Amino acid sequence: MTYDTYRHFHVTTPAPGVSHVEINRPEKINAFSKPMWLECGRLFDQLSSDADVRAVVLSGAGTKGFSAGLDVQGGGGDLVAPGGEGVDATRKAKFLRGFIEDFQRCIGAIERCEKPVIGVMHGIAYGLAIDIACCADVRICTSDVRFSVKEVDIGMPADIGTLARLPKIVGSLSWVKDVCMTARVFDAEEALRQGFVSAVYRRRDDGHGGEGEAKEEAVRAAVGMATLLAGKSPVAVQGTKELLNHGREHTTAEALRYTAVWNSVAVQGDDMAKGLGSALARTTPRFSKL
Amino acid sequence: MTYDTYRHFHVTTPAPGVSHVEINRPEKINAFSKPMWLECGRLFDQLSSDADVRAVVLSGAGTKGFSAGLDVQGGGGDLVAPGGEGVDATRKAKFLRGFIEDFQRCIGAIERCEKPVIGVMHGIAYGLAIDIACCADVRICTSDVRFSVKEVDIGMPADIGTLARLPKIVGSLSWVKDVCMTARVFDAEEALRQGFVSAVYRRRDDGHGGEGEAKEEAVRAAVGMATLLAGKSPVAVQGTKELLNHGREHTTAEALRYTAVWNSVAVQGDDMAKGLGSALARTTPRFSKL
Amino acid sequence: MTYDTYRHFHVTTPAPGVSHVEINRPEKINAFSKPMWLECGRLFDQLSSDADVRAVVLSGAGTKGFSAGLDVQGGGGDLVAPGGEGVDATRKAKFLRGFIEDFQRCIGAIERCEKPVIGVMHGIAYGLAIDIACCADVRICTSDVRFSVKEVDIGMPADIGTLARLPKIVGSLSWVKDVCMTARVFDAEEALRQGFVSAVYRRRDDGHGGEGEAKEEAVRAAVGMATLLAGKSPVAVQGTKELLNHGREHTTAEALRYTAVWNSVAVQGDDMAKGLGSALARTTPRFSKL
Amino acid sequence: MTYDTYRHFHVTTPAPGVSHVEINRPEKINAFSKPMWLECGRLFDQLSSDADVRAVVLSGAGTKGFSAGLDVQGGGGDLVAPGGEGVDATRKAKFLRGFIEDFQRCIGAIERCEKPVIGVMHGIAYGLAIDIACCADVRICTSDVRFSVKEVDIGMPADIGTLARLPKIVGSLSWVKDVCMTARVFDAEEALRQGFVSAVYRRRDDGHGGEGEAKEEAVRAAVGMATLLAGKSPVAVQGTKELLNHGREHTTAEALRYTAVWNSVAVQGDDMAKGLGSALARTTPRFSKL
Amino acid sequence: MTYDTYRHFHVTTPAPGVSHVEINRPEKINAFSKPMWLECGRLFDQLSSDADVRAVVLSGAGTKGFSAGLDVQGGGGDLVAPGGEGVDATRKAKFLRGFIEDFQRCIGAIERCEKPVIGVMHGIAYGLAIDIACCADVRICTSDVRFSVKEVDIGMPADIGTLARLPKIVGSLSWVKDVCMTARVFDAEEALRQGFVSAVYRRRDDGHGGEGEAKEEAVRAAVGMATLLAGKSPVAVQGTKELLNHGREHTTAEALRYTAVWNSVAVQGDDMAKGLGSALARTTPRFSKL
Amino acid sequence: MTYDTYRHFHVTTPAPGVSHVEINRPEKINAFSKPMWLECGRLFDQLSSDADVRAVVLSGAGTKGFSAGLDVQGGGGDLVAPGGEGVDATRKAKFLRGFIEDFQRCIGAIERCEKPVIGVMHGIAYGLAIDIACCADVRICTSDVRFSVKEVDIGMPADIGTLARLPKIVGSLSWVKDVCMTARVFDAEEALRQGFVSAVYRRRDDGHGGEGEAKEEAVRAAVGMATLLAGKSPVAVQGTKELLNHGREHTTAEALRYTAVWNSVAVQGDDMAKGLGSALARTTPRFSKL
Repeated sequence: MTYDTYRHFHVTTPAPGVSHVEINRPEKINAFSKPMWLECGRLFDQLSSDADVRAVVLSGAGTKGFSAGLDVQGGGGDLVAPGGEGVDATRKAKFLRGFIEDFQRCIGAIERCEKPVIGVMHGIAYGLAIDIACCADVRICTSDVRFSVKEVDIGMPADIGTLARLPKIVGSLSWVKDVCMTARVFDAEEALRQGFVSAVYRRRDDGHGGEGEAKEEAVRAAVGMATLLAGKSPVAVQGTKELLNHGREHTTAEALRYTAVWNSVAVQGDDMAKGLGSALARTTPRFSKL
Repeated sequence: MTYDTYRHFHVTTPAPGVSHVEINRPEKINAFSKPMWLECGRLFDQLSSDADVRAVVLSGAGTKGFSAGLDVQGGGGDLVAPGGEGVDATRKAKFLRGFIEDFQRCIGAIERCEKPVIGVMHGIAYGLAIDIACCADVRICTSDVRFSVKEVDIGMPADIGTLARLPKIVGSLSWVKDVCMTARVFDAEEALRQGFVSAVYRRRDDGHGGEGEAKEEAVRAAVGMATLLAGKSPVAVQGTKELLNHGREHTTAEALRYTAVWNSVAVQGDDMAKGLGSALARTTPRFSKL
Repeated sequence: MTYDTYRHFHVTTPAPGVSHVEINRPEKINAFSKPMWLECGRLFDQLSSDADVRAVVLSGAGTKGFSAGLDVQGGGGDLVAPGGEGVDATRKAKFLRGFIEDFQRCIGAIERCEKPVIGVMHGIAYGLAIDIACCADVRICTSDVRFSVKEVDIGMPADIGTLARLPKIVGSLSWVKDVCMTARVFDAEEALRQGFVSAVYRRRDDGHGGEGEAKEEAVRAAVGMATLLAGKSPVAVQGTKELLNHGREHTTAEALRYTAVWNSVAVQGDDMAKGLGSALARTTPRFSKL
Repeated sequence: MTYDTYRHFHVTTPAPGVSHVEINRPEKINAFSKPMWLECGRLFDQLSSDADVRAVVLSGAGTKGFSAGLDVQGGGGDLVAPGGEGVDATRKAKFLRGFIEDFQRCIGAIERCEKPVIGVMHGIAYGLAIDIACCADVRICTSDVRFSVKEVDIGMPADIGTLARLPKIVGSLSWVKDVCMTARVFDAEEALRQGFVSAVYRRRDDGHGGEGEAKEEAVRAAVGMATLLAGKSPVAVQGTKELLNHGREHTTAEALRYTAVWNSVAVQGDDMAKGLGSALARTTPRFSKL
Repeated sequence: MTYDTYRHFHVTTPAPGVSHVEINRPEKINAFSKPMWLECGRLFDQLSSDADVRAVVLSGAGTKGFSAGLDVQGGGGDLVAPGGEGVDATRKAKFLRGFIEDFQRCIGAIERCEKPVIGVMHGIAYGLAIDIACCADVRICTSDVRFSVKEVDIGMPADIGTLARLPKIVGSLSWVKDVCMTARVFDAEEALRQGFVSAVYRRRDDGHGGEGEAKEEAVRAAVGMATLLAGKSPVAVQGTKELLNHGREHTTAEALRYTAVWNSVAVQGDDMAKGLGSALARTTPRFSKL
Repeated sequence: MTYDTYRHFHVTTPAPGVSHVEINRPEKINAFSKPMWLECGRLFDQLSSDADVRAVVLSGAGTKGFSAGLDVQGGGGDLVAPGGEGVDATRKAKFLRGFIEDFQRCIGAIERCEKPVIGVMHGIAYGLAIDIACCADVRICTSDVRFSVKEVDIGMPADIGTLARLPKIVGSLSWVKDVCMTARVFDAEEALRQGFVSAVYRRRDDGHGGEGEAKEEAVRAAVGMATLLAGKSPVAVQGTKELLNHGREHTTAEALRYTAVWNSVAVQGDDMAKGLGSALARTTPRFSKL
């Protein structure tokens, strides 16, 4: 499949089976207009069904940041005078409900994507950037990142997923409420300590004169992890994503049953035979596409 | 609205829109009798519907502690001979079920309060103190606090909310089971590391001879956060509280739908227009009461 | 009750009310064959109903590790050619579903055991070892432990409980997905920081010439915690386990109601009267078996 | 306890342990004003905790009908200009949410009442009358009743419980949607066939010249059933109500567990010993109050 | 909006606000090929968002039947050799899961359509016809209809929605299991008695020589009901559909809360003011589009 | 497999693939002692995994009835003095909880059995007989049957499944509460009208002198239905049972997802190919065991 047709995302293949998606509007710190989020939905749906893709890295183009969030001029306007003039509150509400759900569905494509997605946040990561990050499976960041659940500062609760997902993906609800209600900026170290990200990368001073920028380091690490994942059994990796997402929001009894039904076919494929065989023979297996 | 009628709670207004509630029985380390928990329910119901209140700080009067928990003489007695003499186990159970549910409802008013509640724990915070703290949105404490989920030591599982909420508000279930089953004391640093509190305050040695007590520092910080919240859009802040509480206990799909329905009216108010306008104009918006 | 009949587990009573269960196949790093997991289910069902047992410590025999996971030769084979030759995918699936559910049920007996279970992990703790650890109430480990959610490396998603339970028992889903999808090894410090374990024990250098091994230290600590729990009210301790497990997977409203019904009988027993009496008299209560 | 203080409800005791509640505003076909629904909540809370009451019959005073629903002049007005003039949509919504939830809570007291409630509908039973009927445990009616889920005809979805409960208490969702969306009138026979009511009573022509009105017959039957229930074990009857309400909205596995916990104390009372003894001795047991 | 572009569905407007959708492949008894179900999804999504449409009638073209179900040659083939030759069971399963979910989503568009949908079944209504009928809000049929949950007879459980929805939309699970497991034909009378349909129409012999066919009668009745619904408040009708669908699958407490949030904006529109005003003035209101 | 070892159940094979289970204690109207319910659990577990069994008929031996319920002398005694003398209420409750859950699990084996179970009720069907009937998939009865949810009359709520399942398997909750709270007897016609059974059989007067008893007719019909089911694809029939049981207690969205995962392997087997092939060729397929 080709990914040349996307205007707002730059998609490359830094390693076999690895897709690197860059949000590509650096001149606006990757702020999202409506055409961008619609494209985001289509892009991740395509990645999900593209058997050549086994792992995805998601980052923001440019040096300023991952994303400044919603581009108010480029999409937020619909929220202010919804449905046109002279429309009553109920009809505005219908318009808004549809608007928000379409928006949620497009961003949620990142979570629904059956391949693992590693999010790399740097610089500014405000508002919608957090909704997006919450949809990634693994979150890493640079030491200079500045996060903010910014929506309260424009007078509204965040509604593209942060408030639905954040309480389920980090441990401390006290901290979650603090940052979501105050809209204050938090940094990489705080994000790591709270479990929002699982690694922080900084500028490398490697003693050989060269100096790697923090973002380059983080992207390199993400591509490294993605390459590792791409070499593993896609049946195992994608099934693990599915079952962890299911497990986080079902009772243990429900999740165990679903796991048994899922694996009753997952272990029938060639991957487990290959995996077991290679483990015993201490060779490196090669798995087919999925 | 007036708050002068409460006997067991001292309510002040340290800043516009900020209510400071002190549990006011310092001579008993703020241990709760039945009249106190009944009053607690009424007080937080009133705060919830009082449009002049935008954020609440909850702390314990005196220097000894936030609360020593249930006042066994002043309320626990009902638990020992429930329903009177010669009553069979089933009829005792009916009495006890009603007793516990009333108690839960009164303490739960803190969580149901639509305004953000910042709990400040110091000194002794045992038993019921933990149930109460779990109902606050943000928990902070002093460096000298001593927490204990004490109920096991009087021969019963905690039943006013700790066991229902704690697994959802901190990350490590291994730690939760440790402290809930052993009833051991844990300190501020442990509480912070585990995410039970999101900040710890200590005595300030400010170099100018003065010396602030830890509790004063913590309350000052809490009032500061409450003042910050009171200046923000109440539509945004209160909606964020509601949606986070919903999000922590529903599937992502359910939570996204509820968010869309909620925001279909939340973004219609004046707050978002003001918020967006001020953001673009770089001015400070003033939001109406809610 | 006697525990002499178990072949694969070694059960001792290091203190009154405390059972120490050792997985007993050190020559294979305690890898599990099918007879072992069937026995595991029976053993923990017995511990659950044995009123002489008030707390359980679970560790692995030998110095090499807690468990190397599934013994592929001794049980995994069934997964490769399920149901025999010439069987269609649907019939294989039925066989596998039954196989996985029996396996889950046997390991899940550790979680269903009504007594608190303290898991002590050391050395190698791979694959099934994580599924087992997730079923313990409190997890502690030695400083030399090496954990891995290893299943991805044999081409399948983990299916005996790790993916169902891990998202509910630690805070950072980013970290959970990292370790579950990459199958990478993580150590004691990382496990502690992420809340997977709540304590790490290391070799003691006690200045008196003697030198305790890390595993001895950890087991000693676990037996100490178990002894502490065995001295407390079993009504309180076992009820706390039940209500925390319920609370982690139900809404707060459901959990509060269940708590009220549960405690409407739990507080009727002798334990609470004894506990309250002893608390007031500052004596040490002795509680009956449960 | 006394029931003389209620203005809008007439409460009598036609048989020992039986309370007959009449909605008492016949001149307005028992249309509900706000003071009435507030009183309804208090009344059923009192009945729930009054140990002298074992079964409740709920009917409407007068010959015209059970209830014409909401008294638009006496309460509905709040719905039209909520929160006062010049208020934005979000603030109106907050007012309305609170208004609706208070209203729901008052009417829901009929369902939460721990004693069985038998609803008797006659004549007009429109709008709120259906919300109320859905809260009763057993519904019977006269042959002349005219039901209508009327809310659509005043431009709103029913919100005091009909739409939440009706799909769970009758079988045919096709029929439920028909009557709820069209607001058409349906009669006794249709209500019986669809399972909305479980019995219909008509004017009796008893051959001795006398002639019973349909409503008298229905109330007599309801009082008869209530008298029967009042003679049975209140532990059994009230527990059955609780467990059926729980069972209708939980999975079978959840409901079975809850049942086991509930009955672990319910069968300890005197009632079961009496019940069993009387069954064996073929005598009539007398059960204590609950 | 235009509906001329659909090839497999014929869409007309028999009355203002009423859309009549005919499945239009009478020569194959309206059996569904893959292009048809894809089109079905798009069509009902369009109807859902088309403000000119207030109610939908869904029937099958021709005299032979509503639909003979899946066109095995035209779509079922994918189910037999999924994903191509030489593909292992796991990879086939991934293909099939995607295939089934797309199919479910397209048919589910009928249920997700925010406007009420009245399904009219006649003649043959087999297999997929039942999945489709279950998505309609109101189901009516002709006296000559022949229903069958036919999938068992081609060796598979029904998977496009019948087994998920049928237990929730009729009362007797014994009957549901009978017809779903045996695949036997059931007729109009049985469907009516079990609540699967809420009305049956037969050939009219009107005494004036004319003779109406059963299907014409049924469609006429459906258009009549749709016309009635189209004249009512769309805020009320569409909200009622939404809240009933929500209510059937949530606990009462959840459903009441959702209802309150929903109606906090629904009653703010013009419709309720108009509806109330017209009710008082005894005039006929005219409601705006939604 | 052999079924000769069961003492309390008589198992025959009236047709290939059909097992007929008779509760075999006619001299006590098939009242259940504890050994009987333990055996019931083992028997249905065996039927579930016996690939030679494709459908099960469950009836009661003798002419007096299906079952008189719990044999109070033979098992109920444990409920009266649970755990022995001098035991406190909490410890009694633990004993009772375990007792009830074991009992529930044994009876629930009928529902968990993966093969369809057709229950045939005749004569007396009281108390536990209803719990058992609720676990069958299809319920039929004789015209002379007398049903009663009898538990209220021995002073307890039914706890072996009736209250958990009945609200989900019939439509009218008003009727369910009536019969469960009053413990009144209801007959075949009422059971049919309410959907508790789906067919009633009566004595046949066939004009040729012979006269079939009602029970013989009903059993013959059940065996006929079982024979029909045994000839169909076991993948389809057993999957349909599983998905309907899942669908009745999950949201539509959850159920559709589970269905897709389930069928992603179910349609891969030989059955669908055979089924489709036979449908096209108009031949009768023969399906392998499952």
